[in-house]
This record gives sequence, structure tokens and C-alpha cells, in this order.
Amino acid sequence: MTAPQPSLHPLFYPRSVAVIGASSDPKKISGRTLRNLISYGYAGTVHAVNSRHPEVQGRAAVASLRDVPGPVDMAAIVVPAAAVPAAVRDCADKGVKSVVIFSAGFAEVDAAGRAAQAGIAALAREAGMRVVGPNCMGAFNVRTSMFCTFSSSFDHGMPQPGRIGIVSQSGAFGAHCFVGTRERGLGLSLWVTTGNECDVDFAECLEFLVQDPDTDVILGYMEGCRDKDKLVRALEAATAARKPVVMLKVGRSELGARAAASHTASLVGSDAVYTALFRRHGVFRARGISDLIDIGYACTAGKFPTQGKLGLVSISGGVGVLMADEAADAGLDVPTLPQAAQDELKRIIPYAAVSNPVDTTAQVLNRIELIGENLRIMLQAGGCDSVVMFLSTVGMNPVMMENLGGVLHRVRERFPDTLVVITTLMHRELVKPLEESGYLLIEDPSRAIEVVAALVSYGRHFARGGRRPAPPALPAGLPPLPATAPGEHEAKRILAAAGIPVAPERLARSPEQAGQAGAALGFPVAMKIHSRDIRHKSEVGGVLLNVGSREEAEAGYRALLERVRKAAPAAALDGVLVAPMIRDGVETILGVHRDEVFGPVVMFGLGGIFVEVLKDVTVRVAPFSVEEAREMIREVQGFPLLDGARGRPRCDVEALAQALARLSVYAAAQGDRLDSIDVNPFLVLPAGQGGCAVDALIVPRGRAAGPD
Amino acid sequence: MTAPQPSLHPLFYPRSVAVIGASSDPKKISGRTLRNLISYGYAGTVHAVNSRHPEVQGRAAVASLRDVPGPVDMAAIVVPAAAVPAAVRDCADKGVKSVVIFSAGFAEVDAAGRAAQAGIAALAREAGMRVVGPNCMGAFNVRTSMFCTFSSSFDHGMPQPGRIGIVSQSGAFGAHCFVGTRERGLGLSLWVTTGNECDVDFAECLEFLVQDPDTDVILGYMEGCRDKDKLVRALEAATAARKPVVMLKVGRSELGARAAASHTASLVGSDAVYTALFRRHGVFRARGISDLIDIGYACTAGKFPTQGKLGLVSISGGVGVLMADEAADAGLDVPTLPQAAQDELKRIIPYAAVSNPVDTTAQVLNRIELIGENLRIMLQAGGCDSVVMFLSTVGMNPVMMENLGGVLHRVRERFPDTLVVITTLMHRELVKPLEESGYLLIEDPSRAIEVVAALVSYGRHFARGGRRPAPPALPAGLPPLPATAPGEHEAKRILAAAGIPVAPERLARSPEQAGQAGAALGFPVAMKIHSRDIRHKSEVGGVLLNVGSREEAEAGYRALLERVRKAAPAAALDGVLVAPMIRDGVETILGVHRDEVFGPVVMFGLGGIFVEVLKDVTVRVAPFSVEEAREMIREVQGFPLLDGARGRPRCDVEALAQALARLSVYAAAQGDRLDSIDVNPFLVLPAGQGGCAVDALIVPRGRAAGPD
Repeated sequence: MTAPQPSLHPLFYPRSVAVIGASSDPKKISGRTLRNLISYGYAGTVHAVNSRHPEVQGRAAVASLRDVPGPVDMAAIVVPAAAVPAAVRDCADKGVKSVVIFSAGFAEVDAAGRAAQAGIAALAREAGMRVVGPNCMGAFNVRTSMFCTFSSSFDHGMPQPGRIGIVSQSGAFGAHCFVGTRERGLGLSLWVTTGNECDVDFAECLEFLVQDPDTDVILGYMEGCRDKDKLVRALEAATAARKPVVMLKVGRSELGARAAASHTASLVGSDAVYTALFRRHGVFRARGISDLIDIGYACTAGKFPTQGKLGLVSISGGVGVLMADEAADAGLDVPTLPQAAQDELKRIIPYAAVSNPVDTTAQVLNRIELIGENLRIMLQAGGCDSVVMFLSTVGMNPVMMENLGGVLHRVRERFPDTLVVITTLMHRELVKPLEESGYLLIEDPSRAIEVVAALVSYGRHFARGGRRPAPPALPAGLPPLPATAPGEHEAKRILAAAGIPVAPERLARSPEQAGQAGAALGFPVAMKIHSRDIRHKSEVGGVLLNVGSREEAEAGYRALLERVRKAAPAAALDGVLVAPMIRDGVETILGVHRDEVFGPVVMFGLGGIFVEVLKDVTVRVAPFSVEEAREMIREVQGFPLLDGARGRPRCDVEALAQALARLSVYAAAQGDRLDSIDVNPFLVLPAGQGGCAVDALIVPRGRAAGPD
Repeated sequence: MTAPQPSLHPLFYPRSVAVIGASSDPKKISGRTLRNLISYGYAGTVHAVNSRHPEVQGRAAVASLRDVPGPVDMAAIVVPAAAVPAAVRDCADKGVKSVVIFSAGFAEVDAAGRAAQAGIAALAREAGMRVVGPNCMGAFNVRTSMFCTFSSSFDHGMPQPGRIGIVSQSGAFGAHCFVGTRERGLGLSLWVTTGNECDVDFAECLEFLVQDPDTDVILGYMEGCRDKDKLVRALEAATAARKPVVMLKVGRSELGARAAASHTASLVGSDAVYTALFRRHGVFRARGISDLIDIGYACTAGKFPTQGKLGLVSISGGVGVLMADEAADAGLDVPTLPQAAQDELKRIIPYAAVSNPVDTTAQVLNRIELIGENLRIMLQAGGCDSVVMFLSTVGMNPVMMENLGGVLHRVRERFPDTLVVITTLMHRELVKPLEESGYLLIEDPSRAIEVVAALVSYGRHFARGGRRPAPPALPAGLPPLPATAPGEHEAKRILAAAGIPVAPERLARSPEQAGQAGAALGFPVAMKIHSRDIRHKSEVGGVLLNVGSREEAEAGYRALLERVRKAAPAAALDGVLVAPMIRDGVETILGVHRDEVFGPVVMFGLGGIFVEVLKDVTVRVAPFSVEEAREMIREVQGFPLLDGARGRPRCDVEALAQALARLSVYAAAQGDRLDSIDVNPFLVLPAGQGGCAVDALIVPRGRAAGPD
């Protein structure tokens, strides 16, 4: 599996396509596929393969693929599931480069289907042939008019060429999304649906689209990912190429995830991990189909502001307020305009409110050139790097739109790179010239603000580019992960070696050692029973706090052992941990768990009610940098508690970020051998004083991991 | 002001309209208003009043209103601001019943404008004449073709008659909203914009629309409300009439509220209070314009489910998952279908996933009658009281839509009352027959789910109807509210008289009394200094906890006085409060503050980080019932802490709800005399043990309140 896979080029740019199972009835899948390939101007060669009829849809058919003269770049298989393996073998024999299997009845159905599908994949791999599907809807290339799909949606209109590519794991969703973009007036480059993904998967198609020179923006639909590394590689390539990826990932809710699992054979990983991965790679996660298409449309303008200084202009004061509300929710900055800009605005529109939002009132519609002047001032003296203008119903008025087109075209020439969204009810054909000048036209003002927020998030991500800091280095000489869960003391020793600060402590194995440890660490101390058989020490009376002297420590040792022996007679007791009492810290929880798809995932949250009641946690796939750890820390609702809320001192967030990043590096290095780590609590001390793990549990995966 | 105001009937149903300042230029406001009145079939009499021209737009004009023969029901004033007062006087002299003032330049500009506006209002009141505006866009009645507005939006299409009414404080927004509904294919009944509201306000128009037999659904746009009682009366009337009100209230954010204040002369009250009021009265609060119009559209079907048992059907499994995600977010129940329903579904569509969401796959499109069968099963054996069906692009296919129309019409005849939303990309004219059968058609599946959630919330509100429980009765013999803030002990005595449980305590004025109080209450006790000059007792060393004996209490008394005298020498000390130590409670905060518009508002939150860090609070306008207090308690994020989270006992939520409701009744009874109440903490004890106010502060409004 380490040899590079053959390219997907023949899938999207085939010179010849054979339809295996082509039929004459264009109402059937088998007939529609052939019809779509021959009806819309595809310049390559199309071969119909039909074992029973020498003529199909008015063209000669061959009985078998081997009868096709010359090479075949791509084959579409539309025979019943039972006949698919033989057809795939024919393709391999013929030296076909890519195969699309539409037929359903494989891994999505039962174990036999899974086996048949695996057989197809093996055969393809052996033959160096790429397979899309089974149970998919194929692919198309709008520029070459290569429509290798049984979709019937061309009946109501063809896709126009454009710079948006679509990858969908679901065929029906892919078809819907193509019609949605078409009806929105958006042009497409490449389109592919991956179905059961026996070979070619979502990530690989995504990466192909990123590399495709005709594609600038990619819309993705996914239910689950199988190969994290491929997905990450594709997303990194998108960042490098500054191509925005907009993703609709379903299965957010428990019910949704259950339904997704029954719908495809995908492994649906924990949804929060996808959110974290998308955030890391600058992917906008769409909430629904309209969202997906609107953000995709917005990206086609290619303007990605980095500052997020938003100017709002409205001919209705009320809608100005509405947009300001929405901007506040979206975290955009709507700065009061500089006085000079306000003065200039007042000069040209004396009756306007000029702070920001600017309320021009509808009177500007009588002198449309004022709208252009207003915009120029916002961009120049106003210093906005994005502007949203609400023009109500101007987009339905041909005369006004003609005037406005000229006025705004001139502004655009002076400020070619700034994002300007015009929001108006419109007739699409009237606003085309504005779109061609690089303006975005969006009907709903709230949506316009959401769109700006998305473009700013892309802008910031692209500005960081590939310069994302590296995770910290793994310290040398780390002890190997034990085969079974180590005790608390040992677990902390391992974490300390991994660079995560732990509370100073000693393991005492006698009352005398306890007294000595206390004296060495300095009283008062905390004492707790040490046993790998006991998870909840206080529940068995295994903890003593504020132990003040050597004598108390010695007595405490005896008392602890006695209490715990009574409460948990079966537990093996290793002794007692002695540690200094630490106050003034904020309790946090650092955790690692293993995700089936994404491997070790690091969780962060504040202790107590934040995790237990509010589920206020955030996650990231390991490993990650200190910078990303800082982002995580700021994501939780309880962050103000670390930042000096309620008159407390600010905490050492930097030390916490270092600990999180190092934990992620350690976890990633253990890979599949690790089941979980719990650092609970990790105490964050006041700024400059660091922090430390007070309790820790490391659980290796044991047997389940198998040989590495 | 107690005499009932004359009806708004002449505003919406005038038999004659005079345009004062009518001009010949239909590009001007003065010309357009006349043109709109005479061009679209209004059967009433229209008079042009122009002091300089005897003919305007081809019809004879009179020089003055007094020259108009016969009565005038309504006058539209379109003269410059300076000439408006004289025009209003003319109207009064003529006995005009309603006046619409379009002219701007009044309260929204400066103090002189405010004064002029107040003069107009006084004149109108005296004359028994109703005034809309100034600074508004007028009103229209689609059925009678009475278009008394200067909107130019009729240029691109007239509103169709229908059953949606629109009330907007903003003229520009009102015009935009009318075009938005028109483009969405929705019909209107009445439309009015209220502008500066010198006389007729939003609430009054809302109430008129509620009473209007041609209006079923009301869309409202508001920036602020001046008269809470009128608004509440209108909303109660809407509930009684089962007419859904959909409201877009702007000024959610701080920035938005600031912008709104500069935009109109409205008092923008605290936004959360509006949310609370809307929730109480079953008003759906739209987030934006699309939301407003989509929910308005959905309401026109008149189907308001009460159970929220949602069935999902999709020809794309992926979209089924997407809808399930959205339903989970919206709090809708997507129950697994009963086995009988699943069996029946499997029988007719063997390849379908039949649990819920039902995934029929796109194959059903080849046998469209299966879609009808599927729906019938969902409604019958499935027990769903609402269904959303995703049909991708079927709505663009004339042949399929024709078949589907027949199939679904038959299902509708059997289940006339159930809410069914079809989601598909569509050509509007193709789906008309389905809409006429009572189906809702919505393009975006996520939006379809949001719409169902809104309709369910109306359904539940209407089902409760007028049967909302009353607030508790105010106990008899309440002590009067003191003129200045009472001390803590007195404040608690007042609250106790109002029916709010307070912690048992005694005010000791000597060491001996402190010892006796402790003995009477039972040791250990808490002791705190009592002084109306000291707000933060612990900061001056004014609190002692766990005082264990009579001797300790006596010494404690002396120690407290000594410490506090040193820390706050100027404070008058009344003695020391002695109270039993209470453990095991959850700290909550009950507060009352006075909202400029809504009067006393009650706030509830959990103590500590919940209020201080997370701002996790909820509010209601006082007074309210125990039932509504229960709702409030469940609204805060921290509710699980009261409900037994983290292994704690469940708290006495019922006692808390009683306390909140009684506090609201007490606060409402004090009205404008009260500035604020803080009960912090109110300790909620384990279930069955009640709760009690541990500290309390009551602040009367003092001088500011004035004579009552």
C-alpha cells in the first residue's frame, strides 16, 4: 500500500469511455448513463457494451469490452451487482485506467456485499486500475462535457462551466447540490460522487480538485472519513493553493450519526473531532445546503479579508441595525468610522447617520452616484476591509441597476481587492454586471453578514498559510509505554519525562518514609493512597489533606492504610503519595482518547461543573503546536476563569498551553498503543508560576492493539 | 388618556382619501402617493390638495382641504415638515378621521422636532383624529386597492391579496418586506408602517390586524416598544384569535441597540426582556428577513402541531441525516417508527431504511405513488404529527409534479390537518397545486426543519390558549415599601411578608442577645454585621461562620463590631444578625430591576460563576405564574445543578419557583416605586426542604418616582 496510487486524471479527463451494460431505455440507469455521455458534446470516444443487443440508442454496441478497438480510459459499470466482479475483471484485462461502478448492493447491504466489494478493490489494486464506487453516481467534467453519471437532472438544465468543484460521498446529495448551484447561477468545473469508496475516496478526489487548474473553490459533502492522513494531506494542499473548501459534514447529532451509519458503510467518527480538524485546516463547516452553496458562491469572488473591519451601509436604518446585530453574533468588528470619513460622508449625504452602520436613508436612490461615493469613502477614509450595502429592492429595477452598475464599476477599479457585498432583492440577470465587476450579490442581509464572516475566516487562515508553528519536539529518552496501566506515581513520571509538569511528590512505603517525605517537601502536605486498583481514592477514605507535621504524617500513613484495607480489601496497596498542598490554582482537565479514524485526540476543559454539567470542552487531533493549544484554551466558555475573572489573578495560560501541546505530542508518538490519558486535575497556577498535573492515569491499549 | 381612542378602521378602510401636497411629478414623494392611490383600482374618492396648481396628474385639485366637498376619512400629508402642523390643523377643522404624515424632520432630528411632533399629537387627540407617523411610509389595504404610501415598489409588481398582514416601525423595512413576500408568492391583507409613532403605535396596529377578519398571520418589525400594556393586550388578542405573530425585533446586540437608538426616537429596552415577553406570548422571534418571511409563509397553512413528533422522509440518505441533525438542534422529537409502520414501509419499499429518518432512495421517483403510500404510513401507523419529505429536484420536473400532485392530494384528503412540508428545488408555478392542497413547499431542508419547530411552538402556545395560570395572589397586609433602602433584616421581613421564605435569623444588639439568639436558633450559627451603610460585609471583616457556642457568639459580637468600626468608621452599625449555618443548598440569585418600558423585570440565575462568568441568567416581566417560573428555572444552562447533577440530591425546584413567582408579584405591585431587589443568595435546599433568602437588598426608587 505504500506505492503511490495511479492518478485520478483518467477519471476526470478520459479520452474514451465505455459503458458496460449500456441499454436503449434512457429511463433506466443503464440507458441514461449512455445518453448523458453522448448527448451533450463530449469529444472523446464512447463505447456501448451490451452482450445482447448489437445496437443501443442508435449506435453500434460491442458484446464485450474486449471487442472495443483501441484503449479505454474509463469504464462505467451499470450491470446488476452479481455481474459487477466479472465486469471489473474485463476492465482489468482490457487495461482500463479508471472504473466507475454505479451498481448498488455491496458493503451498504451485508457481509457478502462487503466481501464482493473487497474483492473488487483487490483486483483493481493488482491491475493498477482506479475504482470509484460502487453505489455511486459517477463523475462529470463540465469543460469537456464528459457527463459519466446516470443523474436525470440534466433534463431541467445543464451545468455551466465555472470554477467550483463538488465532491460528495452521497450520489443523491451530489446531484442535488449540482442543481442547487446551477439554479443559483454558479458554474462548475468537476463533480464526483464517491459512494462506498472501495478504492477512490473523498479525500483523494478533494486533493485532485485542489490541484485542478480549472477549480478555485471546492464544495464537499461527507458522512465520514476513513483515512485521516489523506484527508489532512488534501486540506493542507488546499491551504497551500489558497483554495477554499466548504464542507457539509452530516451526523452532528446523535440521531444524525446513527442515521448516517445506517446509510453508508462509513465509519462516522466523533463529530467534534471533525469540527476541530476543519477549524485547524481553515475549512468552513456549512450547516446546510443553502449555507454550503451561499458560502461557495461567496468564495468565487476570491476576496478574503484578513482584518474583518466591516463597514455597513443601509438605505433602511432598521436593516442597518439588523446587520449590526448579526455582525456582533459573527464576531466581526464594526468599527466607528474615523471622524474624517464621517465628515466626508456628512458632506455628501447631510441627512445620513454616518457612524457605522451608515444609514443613508432611501433618498440616495434619487442620486445613485452617492452610493458610489459612499462606498469609496468607506474603503478609503473609513479603512474598512469589507463592506456590506443593503439596497432593498434596487436589484429588481433595470434603470437603477444600469446606473448603479456604472457607478460601482468605477469604484471597483480603484479598489479591486476589497470585499463588497451588495444585498438586495434582485432579478439575477440585472445584477450580472455587478458580479462581473467582482461584487457579491446576496438577497438576505443577515446571510450577507454570515458570508463576510466566512470569508474573513478563510482570509485569516490563508494569511497564516503554511507557516503554522510545529508541535513541540518529543523529548529524548522517554520511557516506553508500559503494557498495562501504570500506577499514578509512575504515570506522572512518564508525563514529566514527556515535558508535562507534575506536582512534586514522593511515594512513601512506610510511616517513616511518609514523615521524611513531608519534611523534605515542606508541611503542610496532602497524602493519598497509591494503588492501581483504586480509581476514586476519596470514596474509600484514601486522601488526607493539610497534614501539618512529621508525626501527623506518620499517623496519617497508618490511618490511610487501615481505612482503605477496610473499604477495599482486595486492592493491592503500594504505599502513600505525599505531596505539598497547592492552593490558588484553577483546576483543568487534560485528556486523551483514541478516535477510530483520527487516532489520539486531546480534550481540554475546566474542572468541576464546566466539564461535568456544562460539557464545556474542546478537542484537537494530536499532535499540535502551542499556538493551537492557546486557541483551544480560549475556546471554552469558562476561559474567563483562567483570565482573571471574579478578581482572581490571571493564570499561567502559557504553561497550560505548553502542557497541552506536549501531551498531544506524547500521545501522537504512542499512536495505536495508547488507549487514553486523564490528567485530572491539571492545576494552573497564577501567571509566571506554571502549573502541574496533580493526578494522572495512563491506559495503554493492551491486547487490542496487536503487533505494531 | 383613559377615554378609548377612536378606531383605526378609517386608516385601513377609508372611503375617501385626500393627499395634502399632491404634486404632478410621480418621481417625488408627493406625486407618487397620489399616483399610487389613483392607479391601482381604489374605489374610494381621492382628492388632490395643492395650493398652487388647479390640476395635478390630470385631475382637478383643490387649493385647500376645506374646499373638498363632503367628508374625508383619511388625509395623507406630504408637505415639508414646517408646513405639517398647519396641514394637521386643517385636517382637524375638516373632521378628518385619520391622518398619515409621511414628512420627516420631527422627533428623529432634534428637540424642536420633538416639540412639533408633540404639538401635532395633542392637536389630534383633541380633535379625536388618529395620526400615523410622522416619518413613515403609510399604509395599504390590498383587497380594497387602497395604496396610501409613496413606496415605488409597485413599479416592479403589485401585492396579491392574501391573509398576511405586515406592521413595521420602519418604512423602508416595511417596503422591503412587502416586496420580499410578493417575490415569495405570498398574498397580503393590510400593511402599515408607523414611523415616529406620535399617536398610532405598533401595538395598536398589531391589535387591529389581529381583529381583521381578512388577516390570519402577522409579520412585525420593531425597534422598540413604548407602551407595554398595549403590546401585551395585542399579543393576548393574537393568542385568543389563534393568529400567529412573527416578529423581527432588531437591537439584539449592544452595537445594534446603539444604532437603533440613533435611527428612531424609540426607547429600545433591554433586548432580553423582549425575548422573554415574546416567549410568554408565543411570538416567534425571527433572526432576519428570510426567517421572518419563511415562518410567515409556513403559518399560512394554518397547521400547528402540538406534539412535535416529526417524521423525516428523504430520497437521499445524506439529507435525511442532515435533517435529523437539524431536528436535534431544534429540540424536535424524531421518534423511531413503530414496528408495524416499519413493516408496512418495508413491504412497499423493500430497499428503504425505515426507522426514521426514512431513506427511500431515489428509486421511488420511478413509482411516484410510493411517495404517497409512504406519507400515509408515516401519518397513520407512524403516528407522526408532522412530516418533512425531501424530494431533491422533483419540484422542477413538470411531469413528476403532475403525478405527485394527484397522489399527495389524495393523502391530504385523508389527513387534512397534519403538517407536511415538502422540500425540493422548484419552479414556483409547478408546486402551486400542492400548496393549494395545504402542503408547505420549502427549498432548503434545514430551513424546513426550523419551520416545523416554529409551527410546533405556535401549536403548543395555542393549545395552552388563554388558560395560562395566574400569578400567585399578593398576600394581604404587606408592609409598605419604605422610602429609603431598608436594612437587610427589614428587607427580609418584607420579603417574608410577600411569601418568600427567608433564613431564620435574629438581630442581636448586644453580645448577650447574640449568645441568646445562637442558643435559640441552635449552634453552630453564622454572624454578620448589620448596617445599611455596608454592602460587602466580608470585605470589612463583618462575617463569622461556624460559631459554636454561647461564649463564642458573645465574643464574636464584640469582635465583629470592633473590626468593622476600624474598617468602616463612618458606617452606622445596627447590631449583628445571627442565623443558623445552612449547608447542602445550591446558591441562586433572584433579582428585580426596573426596565424603562416594561417596568419590574425579574432575573434568575445560579450563583457564582454562572452569573459572574457565564452570564447565565434569564428574565421575565413581572408578574408571572409559578408555571412560568418553572420555565425560567429550566432555561438556565446551570439547571442540571438543581436537578441532581454530579451525584447531588435534587433541589426543591418547586419552592424556588414559588419564591420567584411571589417575588414577581410583589415587584409588580410596587410598580414605579421600586428600583431593584437583590436576593443573593437564595439557597435552594434538597427536594422537600424548601429554600430561603440568605441575604437581601431592596432599593426603592426614591425621589425619581414622584407622586403616584
